[in-house]
Amino acid sequence: MWAGPLIERKRDGGALASEEWRDLIAAYTAGDVPDYQMSALLMAVFLNGLEPAETAALTGAMLDSGARLRFDHLRTPCVDKHSTGGVGDKVSLVLAPLVASCGVAVPMISGRALGHTGGTLDKLEAIPGFRTALSPGEIQRQVESLACAMIGQSADIAPADRKLYALRDATSTVESVPLIAASIMSKKLAEGISGLVLDIKRGSGAFLPDLETGLELARTMIQLGEDHGCRTVALLTAMDRPLGNACGVALETEEAIAGLRGEAPADLMEVTYALGVEMLLLGGAARTPGEARASLERAVRAGKAADKFRSVVAAQGGNPAVLDDPGLLPQAPEVATYAAPRAGFVAGIEPRVLGKAIVEMGGGRRTMDDAINPAVGFVVATRPGDTVEAGQPLASIYAANAQGIRVGIAALNRAIRIVSETPPPGLPLISHRVTREGVETVA
Amino acid sequence: MWAGPLIERKRDGGALASEEWRDLIAAYTAGDVPDYQMSALLMAVFLNGLEPAETAALTGAMLDSGARLRFDHLRTPCVDKHSTGGVGDKVSLVLAPLVASCGVAVPMISGRALGHTGGTLDKLEAIPGFRTALSPGEIQRQVESLACAMIGQSADIAPADRKLYALRDATSTVESVPLIAASIMSKKLAEGISGLVLDIKRGSGAFLPDLETGLELARTMIQLGEDHGCRTVALLTAMDRPLGNACGVALETEEAIAGLRGEAPADLMEVTYALGVEMLLLGGAARTPGEARASLERAVRAGKAADKFRSVVAAQGGNPAVLDDPGLLPQAPEVATYAAPRAGFVAGIEPRVLGKAIVEMGGGRRTMDDAINPAVGFVVATRPGDTVEAGQPLASIYAANAQGIRVGIAALNRAIRIVSETPPPGLPLISHRVTREGVETVA
Repeated sequence: MWAGPLIERKRDGGALASEEWRDLIAAYTAGDVPDYQMSALLMAVFLNGLEPAETAALTGAMLDSGARLRFDHLRTPCVDKHSTGGVGDKVSLVLAPLVASCGVAVPMISGRALGHTGGTLDKLEAIPGFRTALSPGEIQRQVESLACAMIGQSADIAPADRKLYALRDATSTVESVPLIAASIMSKKLAEGISGLVLDIKRGSGAFLPDLETGLELARTMIQLGEDHGCRTVALLTAMDRPLGNACGVALETEEAIAGLRGEAPADLMEVTYALGVEMLLLGGAARTPGEARASLERAVRAGKAADKFRSVVAAQGGNPAVLDDPGLLPQAPEVATYAAPRAGFVAGIEPRVLGKAIVEMGGGRRTMDDAINPAVGFVVATRPGDTVEAGQPLASIYAANAQGIRVGIAALNRAIRIVSETPPPGLPLISHRVTREGVETVA
Repeated sequence: MWAGPLIERKRDGGALASEEWRDLIAAYTAGDVPDYQMSALLMAVFLNGLEPAETAALTGAMLDSGARLRFDHLRTPCVDKHSTGGVGDKVSLVLAPLVASCGVAVPMISGRALGHTGGTLDKLEAIPGFRTALSPGEIQRQVESLACAMIGQSADIAPADRKLYALRDATSTVESVPLIAASIMSKKLAEGISGLVLDIKRGSGAFLPDLETGLELARTMIQLGEDHGCRTVALLTAMDRPLGNACGVALETEEAIAGLRGEAPADLMEVTYALGVEMLLLGGAARTPGEARASLERAVRAGKAADKFRSVVAAQGGNPAVLDDPGLLPQAPEVATYAAPRAGFVAGIEPRVLGKAIVEMGGGRRTMDDAINPAVGFVVATRPGDTVEAGQPLASIYAANAQGIRVGIAALNRAIRIVSETPPPGLPLISHRVTREGVETVA
């Protein structure tokens, strides 16, 4: 296939027909369109956008490039959650078993850390023995028996997206609303789910910081989901500071385990419950938000959420004792306390600075081939708006060596802004709810 | 070298520093930046443009990627001409020997046919035995002895441009003013010339049809030339109809040979003389345009231009008898006459339609690897504005077979528009003259 005329049309602001997207993606996946043509097209898409019908066609073409899970025969509805990614966002590890323990199945396909944001797969694999690469048969059986599987994107799910994502990562064409939407939805729709909740991050630590862009992404993904018969709801949540206290692979796993018992920081619990409410409503396991919330809180209190995670860990080859002894998670050899350099108000905690420091400390990835050290990171014990004294401990640094501690201290110096006057408030933790009916502001 | 941040900056409308362009082009030429990153960057350049300093840096980087010819020791100044390309444009074959016969040396590096436009190298190679690939030593000696060499771009001239041009051709990023300007000027400045005349085509058959874009290209190239100490002048000429009558490789060679004796169609002679006047002025071989024009016309009348071409043909291995017997050029087995389908006025002759038909008939290239049949094409014996009778012969079609004749007839039916009322005039043959001082309208 000769892609020249298609590139030219997109370059000049025109649109490609659905069949053209289908043929192009099929040819690219088969290796019949070279990377250098596709990357020129991606840059033209980045700069000139896609019409809604084009985004739909691209999503469909990527979805059709691979296999789909099927859970039509289950009596339990299948619902999933996707987050656009942030620093300290370990919600998936709490949410999937929690929702599964309330009668909605969650076949969750997650990704790895990339750039300044973490990835659920890495956090799961911090648990000794945990396998995220299950065969389709294993996934099927586990969702049937436990109502929950937490897995990686296998080679046969949306292979076109895998190839395109790697190319976008190398050609600075990641942060495009239609490309992000098509990439996420082609994978999620392959899960065979009937409902999807989106956690769209906004603020300085998000991939798309700006509110309007976040809303546009929400609307685009909701349209794609609904077009494929998947009820889709989005919450816009704050990523102008980390979510919870722990930032770093195994530190986040430990905080998530605490969250399964309701013992995680309040912001993490609140976002988890809010997303869980939407999932139970979509899955028909509750009739009202209040009923859903009560069901979730009950599952946490009664230990059902933790038990469900324990079963999932065991089923996927992990050591379930980790739930009772976080010391089984990878431990950093060097730990240091970061104290407030002066008294004042915490005006902000910049997530991107911490996320990039974790990469520099060896706990994240610059490229998909990088190995990671899961033990490194931060536990930040303060929050924007807090009053602090000079010398007061604000955070712990976990590092592989003394150099890592130095990197961590430098990052905290930049990330935690201490001012002398009451700072303006940060973003509301949960600010908007978007459905196919429109946008509501969350009180 | 990791090009990601540079792509990102250009994508977001920023500028790359001169050292960044230099390092990027060096790394790309060495194979250390992959095609898929460069093509994303080229698309961002296409859509967001380049600042003048960036175009200069890119041109310098491409120039520095290879060797340069040196003629500093010659007592004769070296001047060249470049045309942005059109249909029927065989000016180079007449102009180079003509100017060389008037005391200005012309070391002319030309290109091949691509897309709907022809290429000088193919027309030269239609002459049996003619070699366009000379060694640097051969070029040097021939320019010293004959004041003229007509050659192709060797592998050691601007290799970065060769690689980039192939990539642009495959990724629909050709028609960008800064990229075109940098590509042309990096090659021309490598010729070691002290003056350059540009023939910027405008109208429907030009790569950049629109007047304003043509002027922008002229200004950009003049600036690049002058920055490198090469006096540069541009004429804007009409390409809303073919130049001369012959369109097609060997047919154009034959018409060019007639032009050396002053026997070519008036428009071809006029453009040739106008460009020649500029070259003689730049080379200091005439003090006024009138003196230059008289010198050129004298060289044609006295047979000096034809003699010079004869010497160049012989020096480059070609059969000089072709000047006296055009039957030595490749001949098409099928020839047909195209008659006017109805009476009326010729409103236009669309060059792009004829150029594309020649490609379809085997006489042009879709990609640089295509072989060509030099014998096919058209000789169009009418001009826009002519009054024609139904059945009057308007053109001859030269083809490899009966199918080619059918393609040719269909093309002429579309290309030659015959209307019943006096049509508006076409573009002025030569409309603007651009120098570093500014733009003049040509009377």
